[in-house]
Amino acid sequence: MKIKIYYFGKANEISDWEQTHLQRIGFRCSVETIALSQAGLKDKTLNLEKEGQALLKKIDPQDFLMVLDERGKNLESVQIAEKFSGAFETHGTICIAIGGAFGLDPLVLERANLKISFGKAVWTRNLVRLMLLEQVYRALEINAGSNFHKV
Amino acid sequence: MKIKIYYFGKANEISDWEQTHLQRIGFRCSVETIALSQAGLKDKTLNLEKEGQALLKKIDPQDFLMVLDERGKNLESVQIAEKFSGAFETHGTICIAIGGAFGLDPLVLERANLKISFGKAVWTRNLVRLMLLEQVYRALEINAGSNFHKV
Repeated sequence: MKIKIYYFGKANEISDWEQTHLQRIGFRCSVETIALSQAGLKDKTLNLEKEGQALLKKIDPQDFLMVLDERGKNLESVQIAEKFSGAFETHGTICIAIGGAFGLDPLVLERANLKISFGKAVWTRNLVRLMLLEQVYRALEINAGSNFHKV
Repeated sequence: MKIKIYYFGKANEISDWEQTHLQRIGFRCSVETIALSQAGLKDKTLNLEKEGQALLKKIDPQDFLMVLDERGKNLESVQIAEKFSGAFETHGTICIAIGGAFGLDPLVLERANLKISFGKAVWTRNLVRLMLLEQVYRALEINAGSNFHKV
């Protein structure tokens, strides 16, 4: 059971709040955040392509790839937890990708085993990463049957 | 133009991240966070009632009341911005309430002028307050025509 979280930004931009979540997640399974360089191109299509290629190179064919995408499924926390437990059974490693300034390349979306969305509002990259970490933590706690997630 | 944010918790639990948002929001309009005591009752209905009464006492009849509720509308950031500009025109003061451990009392939901939701996932109180502050900040920036919100 391993979780790898890919984002486009700097390695040192992980906040203390996120570090706390990472630590807690680490009690349940191995977790790693991987910062990828932003392509920084003005052309949206080229930017997406370049970032998409860099990301896909990192993903093993046998990995489960979950992406955050505004057109993805807006799931309940319990449903996210179910997806996690299923993915761990079939794939072992869950890679989660957060898009860059322009989102994610169509090829990444095509490769994705699961696309999820946190509603219709737009979030900054840093906040969405924190939101993701809280949901990952919550999913693992739900699956472990702890009392963190109250219904 | 004034925004008052009510939540059930302690005054000192506002994180630095939230303080930064509050400062930025403060450049656009007056903003205040108000901590209300958690009722701490085991009975859900009684707890909601007690917290609801404490909250409603604080809201002036002429205030616009927006609440976060899981059954609320999942709006795009631009739509939230439109609601804000409309509410400022008609009411002047926008009160925003985040529910306690059990959510918000039916009477509060009834009094609310707008119920919004940040998707189906469950968030901790502290995170949802940060999410709210980012959307408030974003809404004000959208309405001011700044380039913070990129489409």
